[in-house]
Amino acid sequence: MKVNEIGEIGLINRFSKILRSEYLGDDCAVLDLGEDYLVVTIDMLHRITDFPYEMTPYDIGWMSVAVSLSDVASMGAKPTGVVAAVGLPGDTEVEFAEGIISGMSECARSYGTEIIGGDTDQHAELTIVTTALGRVDKDKVKLRSKAKVGDLLCVTGYVGTPAAGYKVIIEERAVPEDDKKLLSKYFFKPMPRVEEGIKLSKYPFVTSMIDMSDGLGKSIYELSTASDVGFLVDADSLPLRPETIRLAKDRKELLEMAICFGGEFELLFTVSPDKIDDISDVAFTIIGKVVEEGLTLDDKGKRSEIVCKGYEHLRKKRNDVH
Amino acid sequence: MKVNEIGEIGLINRFSKILRSEYLGDDCAVLDLGEDYLVVTIDMLHRITDFPYEMTPYDIGWMSVAVSLSDVASMGAKPTGVVAAVGLPGDTEVEFAEGIISGMSECARSYGTEIIGGDTDQHAELTIVTTALGRVDKDKVKLRSKAKVGDLLCVTGYVGTPAAGYKVIIEERAVPEDDKKLLSKYFFKPMPRVEEGIKLSKYPFVTSMIDMSDGLGKSIYELSTASDVGFLVDADSLPLRPETIRLAKDRKELLEMAICFGGEFELLFTVSPDKIDDISDVAFTIIGKVVEEGLTLDDKGKRSEIVCKGYEHLRKKRNDVH
Repeated sequence: MKVNEIGEIGLINRFSKILRSEYLGDDCAVLDLGEDYLVVTIDMLHRITDFPYEMTPYDIGWMSVAVSLSDVASMGAKPTGVVAAVGLPGDTEVEFAEGIISGMSECARSYGTEIIGGDTDQHAELTIVTTALGRVDKDKVKLRSKAKVGDLLCVTGYVGTPAAGYKVIIEERAVPEDDKKLLSKYFFKPMPRVEEGIKLSKYPFVTSMIDMSDGLGKSIYELSTASDVGFLVDADSLPLRPETIRLAKDRKELLEMAICFGGEFELLFTVSPDKIDDISDVAFTIIGKVVEEGLTLDDKGKRSEIVCKGYEHLRKKRNDVH
Repeated sequence: MKVNEIGEIGLINRFSKILRSEYLGDDCAVLDLGEDYLVVTIDMLHRITDFPYEMTPYDIGWMSVAVSLSDVASMGAKPTGVVAAVGLPGDTEVEFAEGIISGMSECARSYGTEIIGGDTDQHAELTIVTTALGRVDKDKVKLRSKAKVGDLLCVTGYVGTPAAGYKVIIEERAVPEDDKKLLSKYFFKPMPRVEEGIKLSKYPFVTSMIDMSDGLGKSIYELSTASDVGFLVDADSLPLRPETIRLAKDRKELLEMAICFGGEFELLFTVSPDKIDDISDVAFTIIGKVVEEGLTLDDKGKRSEIVCKGYEHLRKKRNDVH
């Protein structure tokens, strides 16, 4: 069997059996430093699936660091360093390469950290791998595995914006110029929720957290698997930008964009219902609740199974709707 | 100007100016954890330049982890975790992928650590990036920058073995069967000097250290730049396996193999001459000394400049002699 037949989840399951490591299963591995935890993540991005030619080198560098910082954010950790391996085609202009490094550096610095090391290599396809490190108090780390039945499901910011950006920029769907401007901004320069993650880590009643880089649907799936629970999502509660709503052809497409699309940089988390009003310093939206089993979408009383598992890197291209 | 015209060193110099980070310049970045240091490194390997088709998937995995552990070793640190990003062509057999993960896992476990996290992705070219973490006491960390004039230059193990392996396996040079067997073993399953690095870190009179993944010549160049010193290397002192000596066509080729070839997994370090006899628990060879300036090879009284800078990833293929 080939890896593109088994898919990413199948492959990861097989790899996990070989690795037999207690560290696997969250957005970051967690290492005990004694006083606190070190979290560490690694992400591979490359030209064909992650860097459309509409992106500037600066955007490419920014995006590469942002994806790793988003993983650190999802653990409630404070970033403490990023290392990056950059594989460049030999005929890349030096200025282009410098643009990538500038974007990487500025993204890291925007979040209070920096690029502390790296490796450069010649590679047929532009390939960037980043590792972000972070630290978090032991009693504050957030995992995927602690969601409880009855908890409320919450998300920072909006969902569906990367999908809308993809449709405007890559598929060239016609929208008002102002909408295009805004959607491009979020598509090319995503802002990982580092501050929000750190703030949410302080609340012991935030029971689980995950970033949404693979989309809402897959993130819910991951939470459900790790916590052995189900989710009921209320379609009408999904926070959508007006630009996203205007762009969608119909409600079906709108919900697909909101649920089955990768590239989101928001945090998805669960909260004990009796304490949720105590979260005073983070803007978020309640989009559903934790139930015994199943991944269900309630759209004005009509219920359906959330079947998309979000982006499967080994099967489809990034940002494909599926 | 293109990146393959400027070369790896030129590019890294440009990147360093953009990053303005105090952490750059050693085999690993060093982060202050309060009580001790965390060291972190990242290395990109890929099919065309690093994984000849003679390698098994297990070898590929082993090699990918070994290169990062070698960086940790060069700082005198104890490995505490490895994360890896694995980009696989879609038509890769699942068994092949599992073989890679087995090799990675066993290499990490052989050195007292494990694969604690990762990322999988579809990639046109098999590409593996590893990040290794380590910890070292603050007063024991070894850097490239502290070599002093008068120090002795030392190396663990042998030099030239990867070059000999390359010539036998890739260039198919005819050698006795036993020689081929031994050279293949070291070529396919290199052993980073983790234990030796930890032991050497305990000696305050070991003034600088670097791994030799880019070859002796480039490693000396890196030490000389970081410490602002020169080196005088004695050709007759270079520790060479009998198999390597037998394989070389002539002395010129032998010295090229020993000095100008990448893929070495030994540690190169400098030691205060009056204390060198105190190193009782590590096998090593004195191959030269630190001088005011210049990189000079003394071959039976005939002196020449060491001009090879070792492997430049952005110009040549790995293991090319140049």
